[in-house]
Amino acid sequence: MKLLYPTSLELKPELLEGFSVTLQPYDVTKPIPKDHRDAEILVTWTNTPENLKDAQQNLSKLRWIQSLAAGPNDVLNAGFDASKIAITTGSGLHDRTVAEHTLGLLLSAARRFHEMRDYQSQGKWPAHLGGPQPDRPAGKFTTLRDANIVVWGFGNIAKTLVPSLTALGARVTGVARHAGVRDGIEVYSEGKLEELLPKTDALVMILPGSDSTKHALNAKRLKALPKHAWVVNVGRGTCIDEDALNSALDADDIGGAALDVFEKEPLQESSPLWKQKNLILSPHAAGGRPQEAERLIAVNLRKFIAGQELQNIV
Amino acid sequence: MKLLYPTSLELKPELLEGFSVTLQPYDVTKPIPKDHRDAEILVTWTNTPENLKDAQQNLSKLRWIQSLAAGPNDVLNAGFDASKIAITTGSGLHDRTVAEHTLGLLLSAARRFHEMRDYQSQGKWPAHLGGPQPDRPAGKFTTLRDANIVVWGFGNIAKTLVPSLTALGARVTGVARHAGVRDGIEVYSEGKLEELLPKTDALVMILPGSDSTKHALNAKRLKALPKHAWVVNVGRGTCIDEDALNSALDADDIGGAALDVFEKEPLQESSPLWKQKNLILSPHAAGGRPQEAERLIAVNLRKFIAGQELQNIV
Repeated sequence: MKLLYPTSLELKPELLEGFSVTLQPYDVTKPIPKDHRDAEILVTWTNTPENLKDAQQNLSKLRWIQSLAAGPNDVLNAGFDASKIAITTGSGLHDRTVAEHTLGLLLSAARRFHEMRDYQSQGKWPAHLGGPQPDRPAGKFTTLRDANIVVWGFGNIAKTLVPSLTALGARVTGVARHAGVRDGIEVYSEGKLEELLPKTDALVMILPGSDSTKHALNAKRLKALPKHAWVVNVGRGTCIDEDALNSALDADDIGGAALDVFEKEPLQESSPLWKQKNLILSPHAAGGRPQEAERLIAVNLRKFIAGQELQNIV
Repeated sequence: MKLLYPTSLELKPELLEGFSVTLQPYDVTKPIPKDHRDAEILVTWTNTPENLKDAQQNLSKLRWIQSLAAGPNDVLNAGFDASKIAITTGSGLHDRTVAEHTLGLLLSAARRFHEMRDYQSQGKWPAHLGGPQPDRPAGKFTTLRDANIVVWGFGNIAKTLVPSLTALGARVTGVARHAGVRDGIEVYSEGKLEELLPKTDALVMILPGSDSTKHALNAKRLKALPKHAWVVNVGRGTCIDEDALNSALDADDIGGAALDVFEKEPLQESSPLWKQKNLILSPHAAGGRPQEAERLIAVNLRKFIAGQELQNIV
C-alpha cells in the first residue's frame, strides 16, 4: 500500500512509519509521477487545482484522501466523490493558530491598535487613546474584561479560543446548530441570535463556508448589534454580506469589523471596505499552518488499516 | 477622621462606608477647598501638580496618601516626604489592564497586524502575510506557541500576564532583582540576561522607572538579542536607551519593538522612532484604568485604623 505525502509543508515521515505502508513524497504543483499512480492514499496540502485534477483522473487505485486543510472544498472541486473514496479533512490542525489570530484581532479592536497605527503613520501621538481612561465604560468595547462575546460556530477552534477569552474576563456565549453546554459554555441555536445580538460587544464568526451559512450575517442581524459592537470573522468570507457590512460601517451602526476572510480573496480593489477606518483587514492569515499533521495521519492510517471509520470524514 | 477621594474616576464611596471616616469627594484639578484642609487621608488619581503642591502645603493634618497610580512619582515630586507621612501606591490596580494590552502587543507583533495595516492604508493586499505559511519556523517570531518569552520585571503584572502566554504555548522565563521560582516560572537575576537574551524571541519589559533601571536595555543588550527578536515595553520609557533602540531597528539587529512608554511622552516629533516600520507605537495606553480601587482603599483603611503596616507602602 502506497501513501503519497506532500512536500508543501514540513512533515516528519518517520512519525508515520510502522504501518507496512510505503511513504512517498510528491510535489503538489505537478502531475503525480507515473510510477506513483498506484497510490491508495493521498495526503494533500495547498495542491494546485491541476494537480488534484490529474490525481482524480489517474490515481485509479485511490481509496482515501487526507486533506490537511480545514475544509474539503478543493478536493471536492477537483471532482473527487466522497461516496466512492474516503475524504477526510484537517479539521483540528488549525485550532491553535486560528484561535491565536482571533484573540489578537479582538485585542487589536478593543485596544484600537489599528487607530494607533494610523496616527503613527501620520507622525501624530494619539493622545485620546492613552493616559487615564474610564474603566469598562458601558456602550464601548475597550477591553475583553466583562465584555459579552458571542462565538458563532462552536467547533474545535471556538473551544480552543474560549479559555483565553474567559481568562481575560470575557463573558462568552456560543451559537451553533445544536444547543447545549460545551466545555462549560452555554451554546444556543441560531434562533436565539435575535435575543443575543443586542447584548453583544464582540461577535466572533467561525462558520464553515456552505450554502446554509451564506450571508449568515446580513443587514437585519447587523442592525440588531449595538452601535459599539465589533464583528470578527475568521471562518469564511461568504458568511457575511459585505455590502450590508459596509453600509453598517458607513452608518456607524457597529463599532467595527476585523476580517481575516472575504467574499472574494484577495479583497477586490474596488471594495469600499479598504477605506473603512474601523475595518481591520487580515489577508486570510489566521490559519494556513497545519500543526501536528502527522498525528492525525497516523491515527487515520491505523483506522484505515483496521477498517474503522476515519476521523474528520466528509 | 476625614478622607478625600478624587472625582477623576468613578469610585463607589458606599464600598468605603463603616469605618467612622468622613468620605469627601474633591476635584483633582483645583486647590483643596479650605473646609477640607483638615483631611487626614488623601486618595489621588491624575491630580495636577498644582493640586498636589497645594495639598502638600495646606493639608497640615495629612497622615496618609493613597495613590491609585502604579508608582508614587507624582506624589513624591510634589514634595511629600514618605518618612513623615504614609504614601501607598495603586500597585495591583493595573495588573489586568496592562497584562491585556501587553498580550495584544505581543500578538500584533507576531501576527504582524501593524504591517497589515500599512498595506491596507495603501489599498494593497499583503499576500505574503496570508495563505499557507511555515509553522513555527526557526529564527522568526510568528506565533506565541513555542516562543521563548523573557519577562523582565516580575511583579504582579507579569504574574497576571504569564498564564495567558503559557496557555498559548509560550515558554516564559522571568528576570528580576531576586531569583527564584514564582507562580511556576523560573525567574533569574539580571546577571543571567547575557545568557538568556540570545535565545529570546520576545523580551517583555515591565520595569519601574528609577535610577537603577535607566537604560536597562542598552546597545550591548540589544546586540545580544537575535535578529528576529521583538522588544515590548509597558514599564517605563526610561528603561530603554531609545537612541540605541533606533540604531538596532535601523540595522535590522532586532525584529521590532512595541512600545507603550517612551523616554519623553508624548514621543518627540523629532524622534526617528515614528518612521520605523517595525515599531508599534502605543500612547501610554496599557494601564490608566484602575480597577477595584475601593477594595485596596478599604483594606488599607482597616490597616490604617488598626495601626498596621499599609499595603503598597513606599
